[in-house]
Amino acid sequence: MPPNPTACIIVIGNEILSGRTQDANINFIARRLGVMGITLQEVRVIPDIARTIVATLTEMRARVDHVFTTGGIGPTHDDITSACVAEAMGVPWEIHPESFALLEAHFGTENFNAARQRMAMLPRGATPIRNSVSLAPGYSIGNIHVMAGVPKIMQAMFDELAPTLEGGSPVQSRSWFAFDLFEGALAAGFEAIAEQHPELDLGSYPFHRPDGRRGVALVCKGTDIARLDHAAAQVKMLIADLGATPIEGEPPL
Amino acid sequence: MPPNPTACIIVIGNEILSGRTQDANINFIARRLGVMGITLQEVRVIPDIARTIVATLTEMRARVDHVFTTGGIGPTHDDITSACVAEAMGVPWEIHPESFALLEAHFGTENFNAARQRMAMLPRGATPIRNSVSLAPGYSIGNIHVMAGVPKIMQAMFDELAPTLEGGSPVQSRSWFAFDLFEGALAAGFEAIAEQHPELDLGSYPFHRPDGRRGVALVCKGTDIARLDHAAAQVKMLIADLGATPIEGEPPL
Repeated sequence: MPPNPTACIIVIGNEILSGRTQDANINFIARRLGVMGITLQEVRVIPDIARTIVATLTEMRARVDHVFTTGGIGPTHDDITSACVAEAMGVPWEIHPESFALLEAHFGTENFNAARQRMAMLPRGATPIRNSVSLAPGYSIGNIHVMAGVPKIMQAMFDELAPTLEGGSPVQSRSWFAFDLFEGALAAGFEAIAEQHPELDLGSYPFHRPDGRRGVALVCKGTDIARLDHAAAQVKMLIADLGATPIEGEPPL
Repeated sequence: MPPNPTACIIVIGNEILSGRTQDANINFIARRLGVMGITLQEVRVIPDIARTIVATLTEMRARVDHVFTTGGIGPTHDDITSACVAEAMGVPWEIHPESFALLEAHFGTENFNAARQRMAMLPRGATPIRNSVSLAPGYSIGNIHVMAGVPKIMQAMFDELAPTLEGGSPVQSRSWFAFDLFEGALAAGFEAIAEQHPELDLGSYPFHRPDGRRGVALVCKGTDIARLDHAAAQVKMLIADLGATPIEGEPPL
């Protein structure tokens, strides 16, 4: 099997860095990429500063198969993603006639002001991501996929985009957890299981809820189902051997 | 006024990249840094891969005043943050006697196994971040601050750490929003306001709730209160001039 394609997400937005907004896009895209068999290698959250956006795009598009960006494609002065993508790709940023016509028809000629006309400017060679929710100008160019920051619009764009991307082997997951079990008690046994399955990703995740419930979840991830089931059975037995009650799935919130 | 100190967050964890876990630490740290007058320049989410962690630490610690990491400091095989910090700092990763004694007293000698002893290993020269919630080995070394990934523990560590950091001018915020107002209508007026206040960060944030309520929030951020109040008054007037009803604060969820 060839290795799965790789991806990164670049979240463009001062509002995430200032703490105004809790990002919801990373988790949505991460889950969807897992199902598609595309490995999310890195996420960067960067400010609305042109040189930072261009440098980050340039670095990451050379390093992964797919770069997904969110944010900065609206009509206001702080929406500079598209101009930066054009610069990173070395192409002009120009009126995209089809998008111009769609936006003009939507807003009506008298309301199609300069700010809205700016939304019809795309890097030359971009393929728009049409969607049912918004006329916001998402698009793909090369291996860069430019999406809105508003989660509802981003999700509609991703739904359109996903079938056009070549995926890999879907990553599956098996989880067992136990209350009142702690990592220090299981670390040696868990490492021994991990060493038997180098092609899987085995992680242990302690939880500590505000109401005082504590414990640990042991998660096996990978693309080989037989291996995964084998490792999960070993994990279940490890928990039981330590005197705790293994419960299948993820711990309750 | 000297410029505010700068920071980045490095989130270390496959569980964020796989979508298993919705990160909650970025938003917490971002808000707290804003109040302290420390500018969060970038966030990176990276996997539990040693060469990636070392490279990211090495790059970012040269670029910002403070590097905050979350995750990867537990006792299991996938907890490799501390060894990587030691490598990035060029110091040995070794038993920290005081932490060793505290952990041994906590677990009792018979339960203080190899995995738990590993938690007492810190980069040479590290200063532990003691806290009331956990004995997990958070610490500062140079300009790197290493914290747990579990939000409750990370927050307790940050509370201890924050008073030891030199801050800058706190970033304050003024927000107005309106329903059924759209960015394309206000972009020109909003840009004109932004141009009058180059030292402020003015952003417009459309919202689109699942129940259909839509609109836009206009947010002014900065350290100069008089400027901020001036810009906010202009923003309020802009919204009213466009025929919408300006409402102070952030839009309801």
